[in-house]
Amino acid sequence: MTTTAAALTAATAHEPRPSARCVGILGGMGPAAGADLVRLFVQACTEFMQRRGWEVRDQSYPTHWLAQVPVPDRTEALNAGGTALEAPLDAMTAAAERLQALGAGAVAIACNTAHAWHEALQARFPHIELLHVARETAKRLQATGVGRVGLLATRGTYRTGLYETALAHAGIACHLPDETGRELLMRGIYDGVKAGDMAGARDCFVEAARRLMAGHGDVPLIMGCTEIPLALEDAPQAASWTLVNPGRVLAQALARRAYADWL
Amino acid sequence: MTTTAAALTAATAHEPRPSARCVGILGGMGPAAGADLVRLFVQACTEFMQRRGWEVRDQSYPTHWLAQVPVPDRTEALNAGGTALEAPLDAMTAAAERLQALGAGAVAIACNTAHAWHEALQARFPHIELLHVARETAKRLQATGVGRVGLLATRGTYRTGLYETALAHAGIACHLPDETGRELLMRGIYDGVKAGDMAGARDCFVEAARRLMAGHGDVPLIMGCTEIPLALEDAPQAASWTLVNPGRVLAQALARRAYADWL
Repeated sequence: MTTTAAALTAATAHEPRPSARCVGILGGMGPAAGADLVRLFVQACTEFMQRRGWEVRDQSYPTHWLAQVPVPDRTEALNAGGTALEAPLDAMTAAAERLQALGAGAVAIACNTAHAWHEALQARFPHIELLHVARETAKRLQATGVGRVGLLATRGTYRTGLYETALAHAGIACHLPDETGRELLMRGIYDGVKAGDMAGARDCFVEAARRLMAGHGDVPLIMGCTEIPLALEDAPQAASWTLVNPGRVLAQALARRAYADWL
Repeated sequence: MTTTAAALTAATAHEPRPSARCVGILGGMGPAAGADLVRLFVQACTEFMQRRGWEVRDQSYPTHWLAQVPVPDRTEALNAGGTALEAPLDAMTAAAERLQALGAGAVAIACNTAHAWHEALQARFPHIELLHVARETAKRLQATGVGRVGLLATRGTYRTGLYETALAHAGIACHLPDETGRELLMRGIYDGVKAGDMAGARDCFVEAARRLMAGHGDVPLIMGCTEIPLALEDAPQAASWTLVNPGRVLAQALARRAYADWL
């Protein structure tokens, strides 16, 4: 605390800030989502500095590395189970090792489904703080007094109960899509965003969201797969909906970790 | 050639492609521009695969790493000259060393002004192909039969003649802004984009572009600083202008390098 206070006093608004902690982003799942998380992270850092009245310069951003590596399909592995679960973990481990060697003290995973391996990966890297997208999102929703939400995600994410668990801990009820809704989401993610067809993806996501809200009212919707906001966030149909982008929440959490000494 | 042909025959549209070459992006200059170059690179890879009728999956993208490191201000260093020129080169060298260790065979620099050190950096890394944004842009313009262009850039980039040289080699005339235009561009880049004020940046860029075209007619405009497209590309005033985004050209060139065996 004394160090922080002294440093704060010493630094004026026109001096570059002392270097923040180096952080990493584990991406490639898919690569568009990884690129988007870096964009959101940079935005979160800018906002973090602006709120404190700091001068925003290239040199005042934390060093950060984005690893975009091929990771075997997460939903497929979760569906197959058994030894199929090892391949995604091994690929993520190899990338996390490199991020650690680059000096990353905190790492965010740019894929919701991949969080099924969060605990296993965290156990392998005791010196890295591995952020958890669902816990960060639940914390944020809890702080804003939200009581129930709808969850748009992959079959893999539903299977692991990633958000349901984190939301339950925060006392937030979570509504899930029916079978048709889940099919629409998978089609929008795989045949849409991951295949480069954004318009097709948008139609699927909008329809899945409508079905969910038809059953449960206009609840806030968690876009619980990094590919969903890429097509849904700017949809005109979604203008009146409350969409929660866990990627944005995760990016803001990572920015806070990078600037930890300045909190 | 035989290997490529055999591999092409062996791979069906439903198999993932064999791994492409690992490539790197040297960013942080500023970080928003680095994030944007990754986005453009992923987009370029998607388009590359789609044009060939390949199945686009997460796993069919090349491994790529984005280094977002603090690099001392390039324009300031070029203005100061002498030993001030060493600091940006040292920072970029440290990042390029790490990208090389990560296996990158080709690297793109996400900053036009930083290309003043392109030759020096390339000399230090004989095993990496260091792409050159102005040469790639000039090649592309030449291929489309453009005879003259306007250049929007930083004072540092004007000082080095980065684009003028590459364009002259390609037989393309290059028109530069007057002093007021240059001042507007620097204000838009530093007080605008780099400080998070996109609306202010847009006004500066639009006015600089108008002044340049008032003197030289409706020439295509090269957005020769990675910060410029972030605010200018979507400006309603620019809807009828021909804007060339060298970042997009560079991203496409990097994608071709990554998929070199598949050309």
